[in-house]
Amino acid sequence: MSEKAFQDHYPDDLSHCYGCGRLNDEGLQIKSRWEGDESVALFEPRPYHTAIPGYVYGGLIASLVDCHGTGTASAAAYREAGRDMGTEPPLRFVTASLHVDYLKPTPMGVTLEIRGKVEEVKGRKVVVTETVSAGGQVCARCKVVAVQMPEGMAPKD
Amino acid sequence: MSEKAFQDHYPDDLSHCYGCGRLNDEGLQIKSRWEGDESVALFEPRPYHTAIPGYVYGGLIASLVDCHGTGTASAAAYREAGRDMGTEPPLRFVTASLHVDYLKPTPMGVTLEIRGKVEEVKGRKVVVTETVSAGGQVCARCKVVAVQMPEGMAPKD
Repeated sequence: MSEKAFQDHYPDDLSHCYGCGRLNDEGLQIKSRWEGDESVALFEPRPYHTAIPGYVYGGLIASLVDCHGTGTASAAAYREAGRDMGTEPPLRFVTASLHVDYLKPTPMGVTLEIRGKVEEVKGRKVVVTETVSAGGQVCARCKVVAVQMPEGMAPKD
Repeated sequence: MSEKAFQDHYPDDLSHCYGCGRLNDEGLQIKSRWEGDESVALFEPRPYHTAIPGYVYGGLIASLVDCHGTGTASAAAYREAGRDMGTEPPLRFVTASLHVDYLKPTPMGVTLEIRGKVEEVKGRKVVVTETVSAGGQVCARCKVVAVQMPEGMAPKD
């Protein structure tokens, strides 16, 4: 997994996201990459990302799968179009819906692996299912429905 | 809304949550209260809680409804049991599943109102539906299935 992450192909004005923007110094800076047909991101929760002491905060897990989902959607749309990521015009996705099933408490102190699978690419919509694992155990299962960013949402200079 | 928030009744060892723990200095410190039969929390996103510039990060919205949902579940369980919040043993809930439909982009720069409605209290499970509004416009609809914290998850001294 040495190649550039999906999110590092986003243009500067779309790189301020708290979850995955490389230009958001306060943010989580999630990085997703292809591993065969699946997408993978690794994340080390910070000590304050706790729920009950010893376990990872569920809202953090929702944030990880949100940005890993939209990143995977973007990469899948470029792949579908036969285009290299980062080429113009950008194919940037936002989340239409997010579902997370928390299967078991996620332990702190281990690197989390977020793994995505593209279920559907149809028009402006991409459906991604994901797992979040800690030490090889799946702790959460998720589904993100991502849609291409509406024109009206583009940042204004 | 001057009375003590749901989360301020949690015992100290359950008050470290990144979303709503009063003892987590880095966290969001979400505060929820009853307003009649509905629960309400207000939250002002910080400038870095951005998605696309000008709009609120969806993972933050998921975090807000997560903790507002479990807080509402706890308050509903105490109410159902005819007990005052904060009395022992604590009725603390965790999230079994979370669903968010993002209806429209949520603008930055306004206070968000998270409003919860208890749909079901059954055994150890409470179902809460929620809306997240900005300037009176509903931007997201959510459903949280909360379950009473498993014994094995309790913090160890």
